Amino acid sequence: MELVIGSKRWSSWSMRPWLALKRTGAPFHERLIRLYQADGETRAQILPHSPSGRVPALKAGNIVIPESLAICEYLAEAFPAARLWPEDADLRALGRAAASEMHAGFRALRLECPMDLARPVEAIELTDEAKADIARVRALWTDLLDRSGGPFLLGEWSIADAFFTPVATRFRTYAVEPGTPALATYMERLLTWPAFLEWEAAGRLET
Amino acid sequence: MELVIGSKRWSSWSMRPWLALKRTGAPFHERLIRLYQADGETRAQILPHSPSGRVPALKAGNIVIPESLAICEYLAEAFPAARLWPEDADLRALGRAAASEMHAGFRALRLECPMDLARPVEAIELTDEAKADIARVRALWTDLLDRSGGPFLLGEWSIADAFFTPVATRFRTYAVEPGTPALATYMERLLTWPAFLEWEAAGRLET
Repeated sequence: MELVIGSKRWSSWSMRPWLALKRTGAPFHERLIRLYQADGETRAQILPHSPSGRVPALKAGNIVIPESLAICEYLAEAFPAARLWPEDADLRALGRAAASEMHAGFRALRLECPMDLARPVEAIELTDEAKADIARVRALWTDLLDRSGGPFLLGEWSIADAFFTPVATRFRTYAVEPGTPALATYMERLLTWPAFLEWEAAGRLET
Repeated sequence: MELVIGSKRWSSWSMRPWLALKRTGAPFHERLIRLYQADGETRAQILPHSPSGRVPALKAGNIVIPESLAICEYLAEAFPAARLWPEDADLRALGRAAASEMHAGFRALRLECPMDLARPVEAIELTDEAKADIARVRALWTDLLDRSGGPFLLGEWSIADAFFTPVATRFRTYAVEPGTPALATYMERLLTWPAFLEWEAAGRLET
């Protein structure tokens, strides 16, 4: 398998399947393409590897799978022992819904608080839309942690946590309060997860 | 089960899990909430049924599942005989990627060509962004039909087709050329699918 990713410093979408793939323990080759190069160079470098022109993409066997959630679902099926989704069908359904809501929503939060692992921690002014997104993230996390009993959103670490790890970095970077002690603990768990620390260390060195 | 949906005339997101649920053959209750009511009335009517404040949402057992793709995944697991995803793992992965790309992408196409089942067929001026979205839809459809051999994107009717049925209505309503005879045939299949015709007939009567 080869996972095509963007710069670790900025590519929140790439981080998600990378964390899931790390969790499987399977060996894989990583192809990193630097984002934000001049003159369409980034896209030109991505296109040979990803037909949608975007990262991430997983080359597995004879296919190239684009889309972070689809990659994670593929890994969940291919590596059942890694339990990337929980066994409980209800928690799995709610976890998928949370990942899907993250995938297509939270637009204001994503635009105003882009992931940048090398940026110094500093609060910024946020619009009401971004504040509403933050409130929704807190409500989602609280609901899932209450249901599962923790320590992660669905109990053990899952794809849902992969999807929200970049959000935790945004909260930290832009000094957004977690909101409750339970959420602070959860954020800390995400941001000290060994695979995340490995990604972060590489991302901080990128320019 | 109860599926909470928006107006059939406009709610492309609601149509997707509704088509998937119809395909399972399982009995369900439909709760239709009229979209675009004045003064936040729509949101007030949705919130008691869907914690994210959006439709669609599936009430199943003790949980409420928001997000169209998560609902479809839940149904695929709960009703394996309906084969909402194909048995072939590669096609399944590419189908999930296509559904995911539809879910979070194609923003220009969605904004410029909103689904409106009661709107007379008429071409409109499109931005270059919308034209690029249309080209990407055509490429996706062509690739999947070629891989699977048809008649639907992944062979038999699947969640991927549910996700692109609203796109087919947009192409028709705004007189967008399918692009090739094979794509015209595929669009015709989506738009004469019995469950779609049932939804459409109801949507055309809504105001």
